[in-house]
Amino acid sequence: MGIVTAGIAISLDGFAAGPNQTREKPFGDGIDGRLHTWMFDHADENAAEVAALTSAGAYVMGRNMFGPDRSAWDLDWRGWWGPNPPYHAPVFVLAHRPRDTVAMDGGTTFEFVTDGIDSALARARAAAGDQDVAIAGGASTINQYLAAGLIDELRLHVVPITVGVGERLFPVSPQLTLEPVSVRQTPHVTHLVYRRPTVPG
Amino acid sequence: MGIVTAGIAISLDGFAAGPNQTREKPFGDGIDGRLHTWMFDHADENAAEVAALTSAGAYVMGRNMFGPDRSAWDLDWRGWWGPNPPYHAPVFVLAHRPRDTVAMDGGTTFEFVTDGIDSALARARAAAGDQDVAIAGGASTINQYLAAGLIDELRLHVVPITVGVGERLFPVSPQLTLEPVSVRQTPHVTHLVYRRPTVPG
Repeated sequence: MGIVTAGIAISLDGFAAGPNQTREKPFGDGIDGRLHTWMFDHADENAAEVAALTSAGAYVMGRNMFGPDRSAWDLDWRGWWGPNPPYHAPVFVLAHRPRDTVAMDGGTTFEFVTDGIDSALARARAAAGDQDVAIAGGASTINQYLAAGLIDELRLHVVPITVGVGERLFPVSPQLTLEPVSVRQTPHVTHLVYRRPTVPG
Repeated sequence: MGIVTAGIAISLDGFAAGPNQTREKPFGDGIDGRLHTWMFDHADENAAEVAALTSAGAYVMGRNMFGPDRSAWDLDWRGWWGPNPPYHAPVFVLAHRPRDTVAMDGGTTFEFVTDGIDSALARARAAAGDQDVAIAGGASTINQYLAAGLIDELRLHVVPITVGVGERLFPVSPQLTLEPVSVRQTPHVTHLVYRRPTVPG
């Protein structure tokens, strides 16, 4: 059986997005693409970590990552990723209202889950089989799964900028104690991997 | 000429201390020694980074790091470090009121600077000669020097716990763009070194 992973890009001061995320500014004010330059403009030097983002057997995604505002309710909205999203697997989107599953090119499906994070994870585990499940983001969704103790491996991609305002990954309640697994630094980002301690901290 | 460094231990969610720091609980509520275990209980595996904390030719220290409350005004208060502090060099303490210099064993002196961070740094540079100046902490003092663009090298010792409330290292205004220099992970802490970009970011 696979593990549950979560990966997210954050600034040195812990922000995953700026304020006021919209369709026009998906990362919020003041961010532009700066938290994600490493995966687009510098994909070669971060190849392993970029590949890991889309290597799971199934995904759970927050409503705000799928789309801003009420996009999950909008039958025309099919995510940010164009006709062939990079997931190539089932993506369970946390939603407030039911919507029919959307089948995209390349094997990605967006399935809308209205009964909570446990249900979404259970469905993703069933779909993933022996493969890992990835909590794809955004910050508040990863935060909820961290708080529930459901993330086995947390992969932080720390970009050496400060942002000052926006959506934070932390704090999490209750407090976490993690174990460092690995770290790798490239010129534009530092990749930190943590796991849940084997003995609760 | 040396550079200006700043090193500080922070939690994964960016806190350098808990709330309500007092003489009895110098790290604040809920922290105990957890942000500093790496340098005391696991000094061997972090030997290089522990040594670097006290390798400068002179230091600047914030009022709250020297002592809680109004300790800098209290002629009986001589810091947390006992009769022979680990600095063995001049330490310029930012203070609101003048106080005579305190000479400790082993060459550490505490000199109280009442005319601001630029003055304290200038005096520390003069005292350090060709050696580095270290901004010893705490978080708010490092933050002021970061905001003023006066830190050449920032050394973060990231402890894999979340704290949730207390004194943050960030945010800094204006926003920072740093360059990663090095990273090293040991079982209890991750050492991240950044420098000011050669071309302002």
